[in-house]
Amino acid sequence: MKKSYDAAIYALPHIQDLHAYVPGEQPQGEGWTKLNTNENPYPPSPKLAAVLSEEMDKLRLYPEPRSMELRTAIGERYGLSAANVIIGNGSDNLLDLITRCFVSDPGAGHTVPSYSLYPVVCGMSGQQLIDLPFDRSMQLNVEALAATDAKVFFLTNPNAPTGVAFSISEIEAALQAIDGLLVVDEAYVDFGGETAIPLLRDYENLIVVRTFSKSYSLAGMRVGYALAGEGIVGMLDRVRDAYNVDRIAQAVALAAFVDVDYFETQRQKVIATREATRAQLDALGWFTYDSAANFLFTEPISAAGSSGGEVARSLFNFLKERRVLVRYFPNHPLTCAFIRVSIGTDAQMQVLIEGIQSWLKNA
Amino acid sequence: MKKSYDAAIYALPHIQDLHAYVPGEQPQGEGWTKLNTNENPYPPSPKLAAVLSEEMDKLRLYPEPRSMELRTAIGERYGLSAANVIIGNGSDNLLDLITRCFVSDPGAGHTVPSYSLYPVVCGMSGQQLIDLPFDRSMQLNVEALAATDAKVFFLTNPNAPTGVAFSISEIEAALQAIDGLLVVDEAYVDFGGETAIPLLRDYENLIVVRTFSKSYSLAGMRVGYALAGEGIVGMLDRVRDAYNVDRIAQAVALAAFVDVDYFETQRQKVIATREATRAQLDALGWFTYDSAANFLFTEPISAAGSSGGEVARSLFNFLKERRVLVRYFPNHPLTCAFIRVSIGTDAQMQVLIEGIQSWLKNA
Repeated sequence: MKKSYDAAIYALPHIQDLHAYVPGEQPQGEGWTKLNTNENPYPPSPKLAAVLSEEMDKLRLYPEPRSMELRTAIGERYGLSAANVIIGNGSDNLLDLITRCFVSDPGAGHTVPSYSLYPVVCGMSGQQLIDLPFDRSMQLNVEALAATDAKVFFLTNPNAPTGVAFSISEIEAALQAIDGLLVVDEAYVDFGGETAIPLLRDYENLIVVRTFSKSYSLAGMRVGYALAGEGIVGMLDRVRDAYNVDRIAQAVALAAFVDVDYFETQRQKVIATREATRAQLDALGWFTYDSAANFLFTEPISAAGSSGGEVARSLFNFLKERRVLVRYFPNHPLTCAFIRVSIGTDAQMQVLIEGIQSWLKNA
Repeated sequence: MKKSYDAAIYALPHIQDLHAYVPGEQPQGEGWTKLNTNENPYPPSPKLAAVLSEEMDKLRLYPEPRSMELRTAIGERYGLSAANVIIGNGSDNLLDLITRCFVSDPGAGHTVPSYSLYPVVCGMSGQQLIDLPFDRSMQLNVEALAATDAKVFFLTNPNAPTGVAFSISEIEAALQAIDGLLVVDEAYVDFGGETAIPLLRDYENLIVVRTFSKSYSLAGMRVGYALAGEGIVGMLDRVRDAYNVDRIAQAVALAAFVDVDYFETQRQKVIATREATRAQLDALGWFTYDSAANFLFTEPISAAGSSGGEVARSLFNFLKERRVLVRYFPNHPLTCAFIRVSIGTDAQMQVLIEGIQSWLKNA
C-alpha cells in the first residue's frame, strides 16, 4: 500500500501561506530585446576568461569556504577589513541571512513600492512585514520609517522600480531615528546613487548590501556582498551555507571587481544611454521619475492622451508581441500606470522607442 | 556620537546559541595530499569545457531560475518527472530548505555519528535535534529511529564518517515505521550504496538527496539535487532563492550528468583504489568499517599495539606535518579512535601508506 504524505498539511504554517518570489521572465530563446530584469547590456570584464580557465582545473575541490580573497579586496577598496564583509550567493542570499538572524516581532519593514523579494524573505522566516507606503512623490518620510519600529528595515537606494535615489543625509537621519537595523540595498547605486558606506564608521546599525549582478554584468553568476560591523557579519556567517559561493563565482567576481577601468567605462555608457532615453520619453510628454539606476520608470500616454493601468498594460503587451520585454507591475495603484524599462545598448533602446512609436500609431 | 548596535544581543536567541558548521580544512596552497573532505581525485568530465565557454558569453544575464534542463534530465534518468526534482546550491542548500519547510516540534532526527551539518541546519531554524545513538556496530535500529518521533529524520546512506551502507529493506522498514519525513542523503551512494530512489513510487514520506560534489567531481561548483513527491518539491521551491544555482553551475552539472561513460569509469577507479587501500590497512591489522563510500574509516594501532583517541590524534598530526591531510573526529567516543581517509589516486594512497609506515617506525 502506498504511504501518503501531504506536504500541504505537514509544511510549517508560514510556509503554507507563503507565495514564492516571482522573478521577471527569463526567456531562454533568441531574438528578444530583453529590458525587463535590469541586466547590464554589456558583457563582464574580458579579464574573466583567464581566471575561469584556471578554476576549471580545480573544480573537483571545494571552494575556499569564506571567499576570503574577495572579502579582503572589497574591504580594502572601502577602507574596511575583511571582517566587515560577507559574500552571498547573490545579494538575495544575504537578505535572507539578515532576516534569519535579526528579524523578530514586530517584523521587518520596507517601503511600498520597493524590491518585491523583501516580503518573500520575511515570509520564509515566518516573520511579519511592515509596509511604509509611499505617495506619488516616492520620497522617504524618515519619521514614518522610524515609527514602524521594524527590527530590520530594508531600504532600496536607489529605489526599485522607480529609480529614485535617497540622499545620504536622509539615510543618516533614518539611522539616527531607528532602534533596529537599516539595510540599505545598493543594488543600483553604481548608476548614480550616493552610497551609505561612509556611514558605516559611525552607525553600527547599518548594513549595506551590494551585488555583482548589475554594474558588474554578472547576473548569471550570483554574487553579492554586504558590509557591516564585525559583530553583524559574524552572526550572518553562522547561518551562511559553509560553501555558499562556488569557485568560479568567487574568481570571476574578484576579477571583475579589480578591473576598475572596464567597470567605469561600462557604467558611464549605461548612464549616458539612460539620459538619452529619458530625453526621448520626455519628448513624448510622458512622466518619468528621475533615475539614478539602470532603468527608467515611465508613465505611458496613449495616442488618445490617456494614461493609467490599461494604457500601461496595452503598451507592455504590444511590446511583448514584438519581442521587446519590459516590466509591468499591475498590483499597486502607484505602479500600475507605469512600465519599467531596463537600460540596454543604444541600439536596444532604439528598438524600444520604435516599438513605442508603433504603439502610438496603432493604439 | 557613534550609534551602537550589539549583534550579540539583537540576534534571535537560537542564532546566538548557534555554532556554525566547521568544514574540513581547505588549504589553498600546493603540495598537499588532500584526503580530508571526500573530494574526487579525478577531474570532472572533459566535456565541461565546451559548455563553459558557451555560458561565458551569457554571464550578464540571469540564469534560468528553476534549473529546468537539469531537473528534466535528472527526472528522466530515474523515471520521474521534472516536478519531482529540485536543484540546490549544493545539497547543503537542500538540507536547509527541507528543515525550513518541514521541521517543527519535537525536531529533526539524525544518527550519531553522521554528517555534522544536520545539527547546524536544524539550529539555524531554531529547531531541536534528536540524537539516535549508534553503537560500535554502526547498524541502524529502525524501531529506535521511529521512536524519535522526529518530524524529519536525516539518514546518510552510505553513512559518514563510517562508510557503512544501510540496505534498501532497512530504509523501507523505516519509511513504514515513521510518521514524518525520511531524508536519505545519498551523497556517497555512487561508490557502492543501494539507492532508495525506487521507493519514491510507494513512499511519499521519502526525500532522496544527492550531490554532484563527490561522484561527479564538482565540489567546487556547488550543485545538489533532491527527489521527492511533487507536493514536497513545490514547498521546497517556495523557500528556494529564486536564482539559487548560477548559469555555469547548471550547465556544467548537466554536462557531467549526461557523460555517463566518463562517470562510470571514474567511479570504478575510486572503488578499486578503495578496496586496494582497505587491503593494505587490513594487512596492518587495523579495524576498518566496510565502506560503500569514497572514504575509509579506520582505527590506527600504534607500533606499541595500542589504539584510542591519543593514537588516532598522533597519526593525524604526524600525517599533517608531512602535508598529508586526513580527517579526525575527536568529539565522540565512537569516532575519536579513528581517522577518515578520502580515497585519492593510487599514487596519493601510496603517499598515505608510506606516511603510516613512517609513523609506525617513529612512534
